Amino acid sequence: MELTQAKQFEIAEVQQWDRWYRANFINSIAGFRAACLVGTVNTQCIPNLSVFSQIVHLGADPALVGLINRPRVATPHTLKNIEESGSFTLQHIPKTLLHKAHQTSAKYADDVSEFSAVGLTPFYIPGIVAPFVKECSIAWAAQLVEIVPITHNNTFLIIGKIQTLLAPETCIQADGFVDISQAESVASVGLDAYYEANLIERIPYAKP
Amino acid sequence: MELTQAKQFEIAEVQQWDRWYRANFINSIAGFRAACLVGTVNTQCIPNLSVFSQIVHLGADPALVGLINRPRVATPHTLKNIEESGSFTLQHIPKTLLHKAHQTSAKYADDVSEFSAVGLTPFYIPGIVAPFVKECSIAWAAQLVEIVPITHNNTFLIIGKIQTLLAPETCIQADGFVDISQAESVASVGLDAYYEANLIERIPYAKP
Repeated sequence: MELTQAKQFEIAEVQQWDRWYRANFINSIAGFRAACLVGTVNTQCIPNLSVFSQIVHLGADPALVGLINRPRVATPHTLKNIEESGSFTLQHIPKTLLHKAHQTSAKYADDVSEFSAVGLTPFYIPGIVAPFVKECSIAWAAQLVEIVPITHNNTFLIIGKIQTLLAPETCIQADGFVDISQAESVASVGLDAYYEANLIERIPYAKP
Repeated sequence: MELTQAKQFEIAEVQQWDRWYRANFINSIAGFRAACLVGTVNTQCIPNLSVFSQIVHLGADPALVGLINRPRVATPHTLKNIEESGSFTLQHIPKTLLHKAHQTSAKYADDVSEFSAVGLTPFYIPGIVAPFVKECSIAWAAQLVEIVPITHNNTFLIIGKIQTLLAPETCIQADGFVDISQAESVASVGLDAYYEANLIERIPYAKP
């Protein structure tokens, strides 16, 4: 099917739609994204875990990762914990942990650890304050570098410097590429849809 | 497999690696992302097309989309065109167009249109300066709102206000969710890997 056969929706029309219909539509057109569990800790040492689908690869040298955090009122804990501790972990969500991972998006009280609430195990690595998730197999940790406020809608781009990365050796190919589908990492679309992905191919560096 | 069985790589070690090995490794751990064709036009009205894998959904109300643009020396055309025209389009890459889409990443000269070079057709919609890709089926267009420099590695977050969205009606579900796998949209990982994705499930809104 070509674009000429697609239905066109002007933004003025979309703005009139029901809030959830609009969010589903625009979010899913934004395309596939990583679904990750972000681990943080508060000043009372209570570990926090939250599913994030806005992970931004910013660069490999220096190795920087970004997270888009929703407005502070919508998701206060992760942001506050990163501001206070300067530390966060990210982990891929394997297909087997999908329901537990999604459940971390529920609005638990401040003093509730999502780890306990959903049944996952905090795992600590010396030198990293934030907790990892023991049941995951691909993870990395970052130290806060900057929080960039996106003033147009009160979201934030959290930028972190990568400190350490963990992956199963069996998934790492000869040129450093990690085939994350081998670890059953899921992709997400929109607010609530999860996908499994299969490698079509790797295409060599393009030249004119 | 659990994290305790994964291999841990400290960033100090990763920094010693060969440039491509490191880029492959860190990029693929960043996870699945959307693979999109970004259409722009220069002041001489030559259309430009470039594959982007850093699309950021910033919000549905106001409807905002973000693009991470590499340092200016690495990918000058798209950024310059957006600065000058204030307009860009994004389109999902269907599996059938994968090779043509990837080929747009080659460094063509200023006066070469990637549309002609790779064999795709520019398609214009009244009111939008930037070209769409006729052969795609899911697309949207945005007007530049702000370019946020990310000073730590000279990349840029380009923020645009969504103006119009196009999708096949057959992919739009009753609650506004668009099942993009039905349109054969591909996901990408790392620098050069493309994936097809199948819906596992949609999980209802989580409550404590």
